[in-house]
Amino acid sequence: MTTVSFQGERGAYSEAAAFELFADAKTIPCATFADASAAAESGKSECAIIPVENSIAGSVGESYDILSATSLHIIAETYHHIAHCLIGQGSLESADTVYSHPQALAQCRKFIESHGLKTVPTYDTAGSVGMIARLGEGAVCIASKYAAQVYNMPVIEEGIMDRTDNYTRFVVISGEPPASTANSNKTSIIASLPHKQGSLHSLLGVFAGYGINLTRIESRPKSMGSWEYDFFIDLACDATNAVGVLADAEEHGARIKNLGSYLAAPQT
Amino acid sequence: MTTVSFQGERGAYSEAAAFELFADAKTIPCATFADASAAAESGKSECAIIPVENSIAGSVGESYDILSATSLHIIAETYHHIAHCLIGQGSLESADTVYSHPQALAQCRKFIESHGLKTVPTYDTAGSVGMIARLGEGAVCIASKYAAQVYNMPVIEEGIMDRTDNYTRFVVISGEPPASTANSNKTSIIASLPHKQGSLHSLLGVFAGYGINLTRIESRPKSMGSWEYDFFIDLACDATNAVGVLADAEEHGARIKNLGSYLAAPQT
Repeated sequence: MTTVSFQGERGAYSEAAAFELFADAKTIPCATFADASAAAESGKSECAIIPVENSIAGSVGESYDILSATSLHIIAETYHHIAHCLIGQGSLESADTVYSHPQALAQCRKFIESHGLKTVPTYDTAGSVGMIARLGEGAVCIASKYAAQVYNMPVIEEGIMDRTDNYTRFVVISGEPPASTANSNKTSIIASLPHKQGSLHSLLGVFAGYGINLTRIESRPKSMGSWEYDFFIDLACDATNAVGVLADAEEHGARIKNLGSYLAAPQT
Repeated sequence: MTTVSFQGERGAYSEAAAFELFADAKTIPCATFADASAAAESGKSECAIIPVENSIAGSVGESYDILSATSLHIIAETYHHIAHCLIGQGSLESADTVYSHPQALAQCRKFIESHGLKTVPTYDTAGSVGMIARLGEGAVCIASKYAAQVYNMPVIEEGIMDRTDNYTRFVVISGEPPASTANSNKTSIIASLPHKQGSLHSLLGVFAGYGINLTRIESRPKSMGSWEYDFFIDLACDATNAVGVLADAEEHGARIKNLGSYLAAPQT
């Protein structure tokens, strides 16, 4: 059994992603991302699961800040399919008002408009399932099939989102590095570069020299108005090779924080 | 007078950012980012203003998709300070429930908790000002000072967010390129690279060869499961130099979409 802290209420997409990775997970709901990672830092949970990017919405800045500020290790990742369902006790015809998080409402806009439903925003998708259970007929909500199961509510219609290519990448972070990285093939780092002409080109030259591909890169200024950047980079590289490559990168002037090596998840 | 479409209701941060750039703007509220950009494409507005990144929340995927999918030109940018205010008719002591967008509520969490306020999520910050005007005393909301002015509601307390370093970068996109790019010093591009060893390193080598710095880079997979990437890159480069540099980059195997050259905004 693995204890996993996550941000949100029971039934959240984060919790479903945790079960995707750990079938025997004991999940701990937390109010904020910071609370979920603090639980992993203090040992209250063995690890936390946090979203880092969504294929439609983009990157999740708060998660990057957690990876920067803590010494937690990335030990696993998963791409979780975001498939919104219409959930409620009545039928679609009797539905009047739909409750959900503003982002979920926006992602199901065509469905909502074509059925002439009124919308009411809520804090999160999972919480809206508990809410409509108390409101009775006419009230429906948008959340995952998993959330419907958690609250024992019927699914009226599955897959109501405008775009089906909606995936969130979650990473699992832990106070302890994994017992084994023998199966790892992906390494995540934060590279801090001096504001010097060609410094990123020079860093990528190190990776190219080892024949290592990047699977993601994103710059974030260290602070507003600063011209120093952190680069969040994922490398197609296992734990053993990472040691030499990253030492070489540091010799070329980059400060490297190795976030961890783990098994790359399939993207579909 | 410049007509500017934006996503949100009157009083939105996007609208305030539009006035920061165009003092004489005639602003057009739109329900979605797609509606705001479609207005600029069809000529219903001269331009649209869309958020591309927030210093806390991260990048805005939907805006990147608009820059990818349309032929709109970036003609300007601004870094807009997000300063949340508590707004309402009563005093802080008489306040009972605070209304706002979930993200604004989350960003003012310490203030809300220290005053024991109940929270109710709404679609957007500006809309919550109109809402509390109808609800009467006890109801307060979180939005910008500008939104309070628009709805003629009193500000109870300014600067109630947990973090003051909260900035959103907006870009202005237009169907027509700007009349002059004589003052430009920043160029935004989308580079599509083949999934080939070292292709990003090779592209950055072209920029380094011209002595051109990057001020931002972010990779986005073309689609889930694909190993082809688009790179959203901002270059410290004016319109005249961009022509030769980007032609050179294309000779090195990158497909380049030049989004436009414009004057870099101060970051503070």
